[in-house]
Amino acid sequence: MARLVLVDDPADERLADYVRLRDVSLRRHLETEQGLFIAEGEKVIRRALEAGYRPRSFLLAERWLAGLADLLAAHPDVEVYVVSEALAEEVTGFHVHRGALASLHRQQRHTVADLLTLRRLVVCEDVVDHTNVGAILRSAAGLGFDGCLLAPRAADPLYRRSVKVSMGAVFSLPWARLEDWAEAVPTLRSAGFWTVALALSDDARDLSEVAAEAAADPGRRVALLLGTEGDGLSRRWVEQADVVARIPMARGIDSLNVAAAAAVACYAFGPAS
Amino acid sequence: MARLVLVDDPADERLADYVRLRDVSLRRHLETEQGLFIAEGEKVIRRALEAGYRPRSFLLAERWLAGLADLLAAHPDVEVYVVSEALAEEVTGFHVHRGALASLHRQQRHTVADLLTLRRLVVCEDVVDHTNVGAILRSAAGLGFDGCLLAPRAADPLYRRSVKVSMGAVFSLPWARLEDWAEAVPTLRSAGFWTVALALSDDARDLSEVAAEAAADPGRRVALLLGTEGDGLSRRWVEQADVVARIPMARGIDSLNVAAAAAVACYAFGPAS
Repeated sequence: MARLVLVDDPADERLADYVRLRDVSLRRHLETEQGLFIAEGEKVIRRALEAGYRPRSFLLAERWLAGLADLLAAHPDVEVYVVSEALAEEVTGFHVHRGALASLHRQQRHTVADLLTLRRLVVCEDVVDHTNVGAILRSAAGLGFDGCLLAPRAADPLYRRSVKVSMGAVFSLPWARLEDWAEAVPTLRSAGFWTVALALSDDARDLSEVAAEAAADPGRRVALLLGTEGDGLSRRWVEQADVVARIPMARGIDSLNVAAAAAVACYAFGPAS
Repeated sequence: MARLVLVDDPADERLADYVRLRDVSLRRHLETEQGLFIAEGEKVIRRALEAGYRPRSFLLAERWLAGLADLLAAHPDVEVYVVSEALAEEVTGFHVHRGALASLHRQQRHTVADLLTLRRLVVCEDVVDHTNVGAILRSAAGLGFDGCLLAPRAADPLYRRSVKVSMGAVFSLPWARLEDWAEAVPTLRSAGFWTVALALSDDARDLSEVAAEAAADPGRRVALLLGTEGDGLSRRWVEQADVVARIPMARGIDSLNVAAAAAVACYAFGPAS
């Protein structure tokens, strides 16, 4: 069994990894400086550990001990802070519905070069919402894409909310961050990708037609470019892409949410062959 | 111009419609009792008014007055509470990024009987997350479905967060709440719908095959059944449905988020003919 430590002081230094989990700018600094990220809920914590991420500590309410007993036993040197639900809420700044948190060592497991060897990628330009990044990773993985590249300003896949919404897909789907926004599309093209910008331009082709063209050429490697919430892809990326694809819209609706659009587009390209 | 009222006391009774917007259980009671709902952000407020919902009041920071001037002018009898951003945050309990809120009269615009005359419906069983309900309404509308039925326990489409995530689709897509969970599928079937349960059962057929069968029969009316987050559709609905369709999953991912699955399924059924 891991080492259980009862903590009843919200200012206890040992809880420093878990403070103010909803304060995005504080967390961004703290997690980068300390090299950590937070997983929330038994299922997601389990997937992080199964994927080989190393825990720094756990923070649990007592009633969650039994459900995580096997995981805690597998990490006998890691401290488990056992707290009341009220104290967990005071430290983290929100009600921890699923009762269990883990702080894990942050790792960058893949490089852009690794990603460029894969067959089908989603590429997030400035998708800044953690929920959307998490949902895109989950859908991309589930629908047979092989990895995700993120522009410099896109949200962090290891932020608590991204991890949770991805249901742990962020641990199994390779991803890496591009260093250079301006060179992203030329880099993908010279690596052999057919770059498909998903956008609602008037001169875009229907997504189903673009996907059928890709399906007719099984060797074709596809990079699906997804733009920011609100304004969509930058003009630069749209102009540099090999093709612009649009999802036809009905009833005067002007667009889909980017995570919904990503799911539709990944599905349209069909199962990996 | 509407009547501008400067308010600097967070306890001012006139702000009662806007208190604690993140407190779901308080809001549920308050909004039902008072017959109101909240729209957030200029674009969504504009769409609510264009759709004919009547405002009770507006709550704005001063710098948002100009952007909404035409709307305020069109409602000369409605009070506009002008507050500091700090006071808005104190009253509502969160930072109002988009600076403008409206309280509108709640209306139930469609009945279940109205919905049963339409051609393609999404039907939410116990989808309890407001973000998911909002996203499903937006995707269903944009992808050519005609309406949405909600089981008794599904989340409220007029809750602030649903409205916002739907980007106002909740105002244009007809929806209604089912009174009886147990009789929902038989009711749809006797109204002439082909009921398609979206689920990951082993004996489910591939979604693409099910959608192709529907497309081959242009007169066929489709009701797409979507289950709760986590556990998916109830066994009852799955067993009562005409067909069970699954989205094939890759990379060991066990499922998509329900809003992503809804978008994929609506897209798979193709544009309305």
